[in-house]
Amino acid sequence: MTKDFQEINSIVTEAVAALPLDRQPCGLYDPVAYILSLGGKRIRPAMVLMASDLFGGNLNEVIDPALGLEIFHNFTLLHDDIMDHAPIRRGKPTVHVRWSENTAILSGDAMQILAYQYIAKAPQSVLKPVLDLFSQTAAEVCEGQQFDMEFEDRKDVSASEYLEMIRLKTAVLLACSLKTGAICAGASSRDADLIYGFGIDLGLAFQLQDDLLDVYGDEKTFGKQIGGDILANKKTYLLIHALKSAQGETAAELNYWLQAKEFDPLEKIRSVRAIYNQLGVDRICRDKMQEHYEKAMQKMEEIAVNYENKQELVKLAKLLMERNS
Amino acid sequence: MTKDFQEINSIVTEAVAALPLDRQPCGLYDPVAYILSLGGKRIRPAMVLMASDLFGGNLNEVIDPALGLEIFHNFTLLHDDIMDHAPIRRGKPTVHVRWSENTAILSGDAMQILAYQYIAKAPQSVLKPVLDLFSQTAAEVCEGQQFDMEFEDRKDVSASEYLEMIRLKTAVLLACSLKTGAICAGASSRDADLIYGFGIDLGLAFQLQDDLLDVYGDEKTFGKQIGGDILANKKTYLLIHALKSAQGETAAELNYWLQAKEFDPLEKIRSVRAIYNQLGVDRICRDKMQEHYEKAMQKMEEIAVNYENKQELVKLAKLLMERNS
Repeated sequence: MTKDFQEINSIVTEAVAALPLDRQPCGLYDPVAYILSLGGKRIRPAMVLMASDLFGGNLNEVIDPALGLEIFHNFTLLHDDIMDHAPIRRGKPTVHVRWSENTAILSGDAMQILAYQYIAKAPQSVLKPVLDLFSQTAAEVCEGQQFDMEFEDRKDVSASEYLEMIRLKTAVLLACSLKTGAICAGASSRDADLIYGFGIDLGLAFQLQDDLLDVYGDEKTFGKQIGGDILANKKTYLLIHALKSAQGETAAELNYWLQAKEFDPLEKIRSVRAIYNQLGVDRICRDKMQEHYEKAMQKMEEIAVNYENKQELVKLAKLLMERNS
Repeated sequence: MTKDFQEINSIVTEAVAALPLDRQPCGLYDPVAYILSLGGKRIRPAMVLMASDLFGGNLNEVIDPALGLEIFHNFTLLHDDIMDHAPIRRGKPTVHVRWSENTAILSGDAMQILAYQYIAKAPQSVLKPVLDLFSQTAAEVCEGQQFDMEFEDRKDVSASEYLEMIRLKTAVLLACSLKTGAICAGASSRDADLIYGFGIDLGLAFQLQDDLLDVYGDEKTFGKQIGGDILANKKTYLLIHALKSAQGETAAELNYWLQAKEFDPLEKIRSVRAIYNQLGVDRICRDKMQEHYEKAMQKMEEIAVNYENKQELVKLAKLLMERNS
């Protein structure tokens, strides 16, 4: 019997809380403990454990690499928040606001090293492939962040460029988490590649869902301010398609809002949302999301493990697609 | 016959120049190629190769980890320059000045990953100890930088705290380089620890030399502005001892210069240097430097390798102590 997300999640939560971060110099390690204490869904470490469980692996052997991936993910949030000048993360002040920018840079650097220290605790026999996968993924996440920043200053970002950016920035780390669990559990290379592919498609669907939630989500449960992407003119899948398909008056109105310097935030959000609805880009985005979700399920089906054991990961995927936060 | 520093240096220089950094997105990788092209003495990778050579290792097997250590060193320079608001590095604009702070943060992150990718190319049989040594060292370098930043705001830094800070910030990476070469070459753990100790003492002597060169060096050959530490009130070994031993008028004059907001830079440098001379702190610093240099030589003597083969590393150590840049 494979464990469900809730059981896995409590193992992960406990392990994160037990990380020995009460170290000197505390000016370096307190911010690491702080950002890791802010919570989050802990999806990446859960995926490592669930993938290991899927292939009959020993969860004790993967908990450390799983922690490494969660530490790495939080490191990217820490440095991204500096780059985005974000004041709030999960309802609390970001590290560069609470401490300083220098602290946020250096504590982030220390976190990346800490992530590698936990990844290196993977079983010796698979250390090299686990390490190479992680490094390749970490480099891709940086590349994704670089593309994301470059897109801010570009007006001609295409939908396929956007999908490639979110593949790098979001999907590869989920895929890497799953494949890490699979490798540690001794899955065949075909199955390890299939679960990696499952992670990529699920990650793309997950990020498209995030774009939709920003516009159509419920503020209370989403945890972020609704319309943040709209206010920041962020080139999401929705905006890219809206810019491509808007004509005449609609195009003029969209451009008015993109260029407006002074405006009522709620009015801008309402107006841009109305344009999206009118152009049907929400449907385009939902269709793309569904397409990748189905591709993910297709890959899961092809994995050479019995139907029963796959159900916990399938349930998690459904949960992520139906989430409102 | 072991190779001399010049031969080793040209192998390293060629390998650094051949790094495949012409990658996409160039906004991420161009700054990496840029900082690595600025030169420097390439002491760390040379030490990996020379230590491997000392123990009869195959240089082809350590060139990649050697590159990893040089990439890591340059990563620390890149992020330190942001934190120090340094405009110039090796006579050229720093990355955050030439590009932007965000680019410098993200390209640095990518460099740290790249460093791990090259470290991971160590011979499989010693991958785990090499990797663990590197991670431990990298964490210590961050800790050293944190202490260095904290010392800026403290008036009561002791000489032993200062030595511990430079051990972390400078010495451990030299020691790690040497030990990495030793491990890859199959040295005994006793010899690997001895060469690590040699690196620590040499690194401490090297940094004390740097403190002296800032005050007494020749601007043309030092490559940095002379007196930079004095102008920045940097708590070097010299200043810490001066603060401790200055009395009466000398103490008053030293404090005047530490607190002065508007002054002629050359006059401040000349005056503080005169105080150092009067108090004899240059001699204290030179003595400490000599003490660690001799400890390093003592450890080198204890290594179970014939006298002949040690001479290239001994010569390099002498060269570093006699340098004026």
